[in-house]
Amino acid sequence: GQLFKVAVLPGDGIGPEVMAEALKVLDAIEKRYDVKFERTHANVGGAGIDLEGRALPETTVNICKAADAILFGSVGGPKWETLPPDEQPERGALLPLRKIFGLYANLRPAIIFPSLTSASSLKEEVIAGGFDILVIRELTGGIYFSQPKGIDGAGRDRVGVDTMRYSVPEIERIAHVAFQAARKRGKKVCSIDKANVLSTSVLWREIVINIAKDYPDVELSHMYVDNAAMQLVKWPKQFDVILCENMFGDILSDEAAMLTGSLGMLPSASLAEGTFGMYEPSGGSAPDIAGQGIANPIAQILSAGMMLRYSFGMVEAADAIDNSVAKVLDQGYRTRDIYQEKAGEKLVNTKEIGDAIIANL
Amino acid sequence: GQLFKVAVLPGDGIGPEVMAEALKVLDAIEKRYDVKFERTHANVGGAGIDLEGRALPETTVNICKAADAILFGSVGGPKWETLPPDEQPERGALLPLRKIFGLYANLRPAIIFPSLTSASSLKEEVIAGGFDILVIRELTGGIYFSQPKGIDGAGRDRVGVDTMRYSVPEIERIAHVAFQAARKRGKKVCSIDKANVLSTSVLWREIVINIAKDYPDVELSHMYVDNAAMQLVKWPKQFDVILCENMFGDILSDEAAMLTGSLGMLPSASLAEGTFGMYEPSGGSAPDIAGQGIANPIAQILSAGMMLRYSFGMVEAADAIDNSVAKVLDQGYRTRDIYQEKAGEKLVNTKEIGDAIIANL
Ligand SMILES: CC(C)[C@H](C(=O)O)[C@@H](O)C(=O)O
Ligand SMILES: CC(C)[C@H](C(=O)O)[C@@H](O)C(=O)O
Repeated sequence: GQLFKVAVLPGDGIGPEVMAEALKVLDAIEKRYDVKFERTHANVGGAGIDLEGRALPETTVNICKAADAILFGSVGGPKWETLPPDEQPERGALLPLRKIFGLYANLRPAIIFPSLTSASSLKEEVIAGGFDILVIRELTGGIYFSQPKGIDGAGRDRVGVDTMRYSVPEIERIAHVAFQAARKRGKKVCSIDKANVLSTSVLWREIVINIAKDYPDVELSHMYVDNAAMQLVKWPKQFDVILCENMFGDILSDEAAMLTGSLGMLPSASLAEGTFGMYEPSGGSAPDIAGQGIANPIAQILSAGMMLRYSFGMVEAADAIDNSVAKVLDQGYRTRDIYQEKAGEKLVNTKEIGDAIIANL
Repeated sequence: GQLFKVAVLPGDGIGPEVMAEALKVLDAIEKRYDVKFERTHANVGGAGIDLEGRALPETTVNICKAADAILFGSVGGPKWETLPPDEQPERGALLPLRKIFGLYANLRPAIIFPSLTSASSLKEEVIAGGFDILVIRELTGGIYFSQPKGIDGAGRDRVGVDTMRYSVPEIERIAHVAFQAARKRGKKVCSIDKANVLSTSVLWREIVINIAKDYPDVELSHMYVDNAAMQLVKWPKQFDVILCENMFGDILSDEAAMLTGSLGMLPSASLAEGTFGMYEPSGGSAPDIAGQGIANPIAQILSAGMMLRYSFGMVEAADAIDNSVAKVLDQGYRTRDIYQEKAGEKLVNTKEIGDAIIANL
């Protein structure tokens, strides 16, 4: 049997509770497939700050380095909000992890399950039958990481500067990720830029058009980021794969996720070249409901599924997890965040929905 | 009586048709108030390219320089889409106009009229009673205009670069605009930034907090841009004035505008220091319906109203225009874009709704 090493970083808030359910699912996968997941737990975010003095302790980095993939919970909470931005749980953990491990490709599905369309703030007629968008966001370049960046001068003479920079190879590799993903889905890529204003976008568009020639079976379109923010609201079903640079992807993936109405359902993957990746729910640490056993673990469980698919090549097991989640929703199981008091719905807690997903595997 | 000089730039697509109605409204204002609007027409956008070789001809700039305000229609269309970005109607006209005239403060109202809530793609329960957001966008700084900007190198070694830069005075003056606007409305400013990633945002937040001390009657909050993109969809009514740097304002103002469901209703103002300003509809040139006399002129008429309010200090006349538009909507007048085949609605064309607005002044 195969052995995979998983760095388990539960983090803060609801992180540990939902992580527990994802780990139960990994146990169940071990029983059904000839595979072992060797798990090493490590502190991150607020837990890292409290226990080891920083959001991303060195021990944690080393545990991740020794692993085949990182399963990440969620970080942040009011307790650490007054720290300087660099040291805060989210920024202080996520940005260094992305850079250290070269996690350049962020995959953020925004899916409405047909049984959950009514959770969206969009009208029934706009989303009837659900939608299924995959945002592919460049994650290690652009205005997040380029130099110069900083505040120069003193007093009222201060000037803040950030730099957005993209090289051809950076654009090429993320474009390949988008076209390859589109091939396995709706065969459409919409590339987002602001080529009427940004030089990086002019280069981005040219290179994406070039790479598209390798994928004649995939349809490529281009949209300005401001128009994309509108079109998502107007008619989300027009999109299949959305390809973005780092900052635009941050904004549009969150907008698309909120349009589904159920953030607690959305996983994400951040992939390096090769098979290494980090997997985490799209939602936050929800400190307001932490410790009550009522959080929705589905995003964390689907994140574990993405790990099997992208880092471990276990497509069958990953499909089994996805299908099981869909079945459990069809059976009416609902945590509080997606409960709508409709006939046929069963209000359950974190553990119960985890158990139901395992029972349906 | 007073005399105001208006540079009239109708532009392309539906621009000339909707401009005609706005000019009729100015005629009507002249009859009711002791004022004269001396109007000089000039070419801009595709019309500028076709007739004078460029999107913003020098004659047009000179006419604008001699004026007290610019009333702008809309520009762009398929005919000019293959030109290099710099020369295209939108980019080639709007960015130089903003820079030449120092139009640093962009005011973009996103309003749902209670009688039009059903045009929004948001659910009735999310927008019941309408909403009224004013996005204040910094318009002459940030990543739009800062240097270095360009593509360096050759072939696969090329690198694209854009720079986002903000100085303290640039942030201060736009913050004042936001707080002063909030004072006359809901007394809340939500300042948007990405202070967990961008140095410009760290400075932005600090300065906005400083300026807020001059406005103790206005409540200030801060939101990351990705979260703002979500919160707009989730619960737009939480916002009163949204204050943004240039790029974030471009994205969020369009998202907010689309949430109203009736782009043809939304005016905008771009203000310089002093009283000079440029006024234009938020929607595009809609080449698909141009020349048919069915376009909605309300955004253009409300833009003329903003001109009276902000550049000419004619608050009473501006209120009269706003009220007249609201009345005409209450009376059921609808151009095709906002017609919903409901009882009490009267489908009318561009001229008819213009006449109705004048009749109700
Ligand atoms: C916490 C923050 C630095 C991060 C980002 O902007 O990338 C977050 O918003 C995300 O999208 O993962
Ligand atoms: C045409 C373009 C340069 C412009 C901008 O990005 O500012 C437009 O989108 C706008 O918002 O007025």
